[in-house]
Amino acid sequence: MKVGYHPTRSKRSLLAGCLFGLCTVAFGQPPRGPLVVSPQVNTDKSVTFRYLAPKATDVKLSAQFEKGLLAMTKDAQGIWSVTTPPVKPDIYPYSFQVDGVTVMDPANVAFFPNERFKASLVDIPGDTPLIHSLQDVPHGSVNYEYYPSVAGTTGSLVVYTPPGYDKNLVKYPVFYLISGTTDTEETFFKVGRTNLILDNLIAAGRAKPMIVVMPYGNIEARITEQKGGAKPTDPTVRDGADAVKRANDFGEDLTRNVIPYIEGNYRTITNEESRAIGGFSRGGGQTLRTAFSNMDKFAWVCSYSSYLSPQEMNGSFSQIGGNPDRTNKQLKLLWVSVGSDDFLYKGTVEFMDYMKAKKVAYKSLVTDGGHTWMNVKTYVADTVPLLFR
Amino acid sequence: MKVGYHPTRSKRSLLAGCLFGLCTVAFGQPPRGPLVVSPQVNTDKSVTFRYLAPKATDVKLSAQFEKGLLAMTKDAQGIWSVTTPPVKPDIYPYSFQVDGVTVMDPANVAFFPNERFKASLVDIPGDTPLIHSLQDVPHGSVNYEYYPSVAGTTGSLVVYTPPGYDKNLVKYPVFYLISGTTDTEETFFKVGRTNLILDNLIAAGRAKPMIVVMPYGNIEARITEQKGGAKPTDPTVRDGADAVKRANDFGEDLTRNVIPYIEGNYRTITNEESRAIGGFSRGGGQTLRTAFSNMDKFAWVCSYSSYLSPQEMNGSFSQIGGNPDRTNKQLKLLWVSVGSDDFLYKGTVEFMDYMKAKKVAYKSLVTDGGHTWMNVKTYVADTVPLLFR
Repeated sequence: MKVGYHPTRSKRSLLAGCLFGLCTVAFGQPPRGPLVVSPQVNTDKSVTFRYLAPKATDVKLSAQFEKGLLAMTKDAQGIWSVTTPPVKPDIYPYSFQVDGVTVMDPANVAFFPNERFKASLVDIPGDTPLIHSLQDVPHGSVNYEYYPSVAGTTGSLVVYTPPGYDKNLVKYPVFYLISGTTDTEETFFKVGRTNLILDNLIAAGRAKPMIVVMPYGNIEARITEQKGGAKPTDPTVRDGADAVKRANDFGEDLTRNVIPYIEGNYRTITNEESRAIGGFSRGGGQTLRTAFSNMDKFAWVCSYSSYLSPQEMNGSFSQIGGNPDRTNKQLKLLWVSVGSDDFLYKGTVEFMDYMKAKKVAYKSLVTDGGHTWMNVKTYVADTVPLLFR
Repeated sequence: MKVGYHPTRSKRSLLAGCLFGLCTVAFGQPPRGPLVVSPQVNTDKSVTFRYLAPKATDVKLSAQFEKGLLAMTKDAQGIWSVTTPPVKPDIYPYSFQVDGVTVMDPANVAFFPNERFKASLVDIPGDTPLIHSLQDVPHGSVNYEYYPSVAGTTGSLVVYTPPGYDKNLVKYPVFYLISGTTDTEETFFKVGRTNLILDNLIAAGRAKPMIVVMPYGNIEARITEQKGGAKPTDPTVRDGADAVKRANDFGEDLTRNVIPYIEGNYRTITNEESRAIGGFSRGGGQTLRTAFSNMDKFAWVCSYSSYLSPQEMNGSFSQIGGNPDRTNKQLKLLWVSVGSDDFLYKGTVEFMDYMKAKKVAYKSLVTDGGHTWMNVKTYVADTVPLLFR
């Protein structure tokens, strides 16, 4: 087990590698069977997926562009493969079901950071570059940072700085962007490609240069990890008291620790009109609760595939609908978006109806599709141009 | 498939989550069965690993602190688990073998970035903090960057900047640090914890503040990915001509593209005495070849678990041993390290013997253990204090 996960080493390959005096440093890892190329996006936008498993009896593809599983077939080398029909350009999570076991694609480095499942990512390019594609434009930088967080823990942040940040010694507005339940602080970067969306929008003159701060939404997991103690409760299974505490904990960490850290260490404009907050799913709920509890701190609020119920609005945030003139003056943007197939669609429409009845101004976007990161990218690309105007 | 990888949603949990008016935003992802906590490091440094698979018939743990596989047992919920004996504090790669299929731990966000296998990471803390542990010291930042690379491609880099980089507007020396075959530009950060090693050494006054640049070693894969074309050849299976071309391609990209990008965009000291180069495995070979081909660019050279053969030294780099006085004057440090169980041990000893016979000065460290990232962390922690002195 010392040299990785395939303890057998091919003598033939070692010898082949020793030709021309170039031995051994070529063998940082021992050979791992035939080279598997996966995924391979074909020119017609079909995709060939491959998985090496000579001994498996059943391998299927599970991909978010397909409603069901796709069967794969095995070749003489033991490589299972399937070629899909042409796929609509976007980035999709996928995994393999190998004799019923869910696995990431071992041949693909693009992955979905998440606390509870593991998936790979396939990027189908458009005929013209999509808003999240790597293009030949100036690039910002994505910075992994530590900050002093709650309960003596060290928190982690992913921070996008726009192109030229280190050279143009000016101050920038900040968008705080929170990912969903079981996502991590890396998900908006690795899956949402927020950095590339910002690069492309800024290059096209469609967005103001800004800093984007991506925190980790699961305060409780961080405390358990760093300080030990009780087994964490399941972030996806709630009781009411826990959910209230968690939402408050997150909002307090953001306002008391994250914002002071960012404003102390990055060149930022530090008034509410230069702070936006947004989030997906649980992060959207954290967004709405944090914004409505801190109306002096954020003038731009974006809720992606999430909402608060009329009961919670009336119970905890009655001033929002109760004084719509003040709310509309304080908020430069309240954005609500959801997919028509999202399992949160009905509640989100109810949230919009609530705001409408209370005469609170909001902008909304209802797309096709469900509770997916394909939709999140659309929502980010549609809202970022509106911020800080 | 719209809301993740577990299409069934628990009605009971949905109802439980709707208490106290906190519905639905709690359900960014639907419930995924019982919460699995894995890995769980116990106070005696034993570790409990868990994997949810009610239908699996055989689940085993494959971990780099164990020579063989450890059997796991299933509980009534379908969670397989095993508790190991106490483990020597360090960070170890591991995975599960589920009915013979290798899978990452879905409950663990710490992963091993690699082109060809997927593994999770378990961190066993020491009684006092280890050199790679997250400690309460000033932290540097880890920056993901794009740069214009070979053949019109956009290259990716991970760049560590030391604590205070943005505030102390001074210039820093740079350590270029290259990971192994099938590793990515993330591996020295995510597996090697190079940022934390630097933070801790700098805080203790044991290392000079420096920038560490971690490039991606597989130029050919980048070109294939971005420009299409021929199926890439297997990076772990070499013929001589390919290996020579690849080594040259990497060295040229580093010297012509990476270094100018870093020196144009970071505050760096731009002479050879302020540039170090190091690498593990294939990255160590790339280090030696690039350094010996560019003796005017790097004065500090660190080879971790790698070497060049006497034949290649005599054939391509005869000036190194041929004029040891000049070599010893040019190189402030030539470091060679390897584990006694490393499959490259013999060749590395031969490389040291070659240098000794040629009267080329070098420092060396032979440790226990094999070709592992546990050893890489030791080598980085031992060499960084020597640099730029």
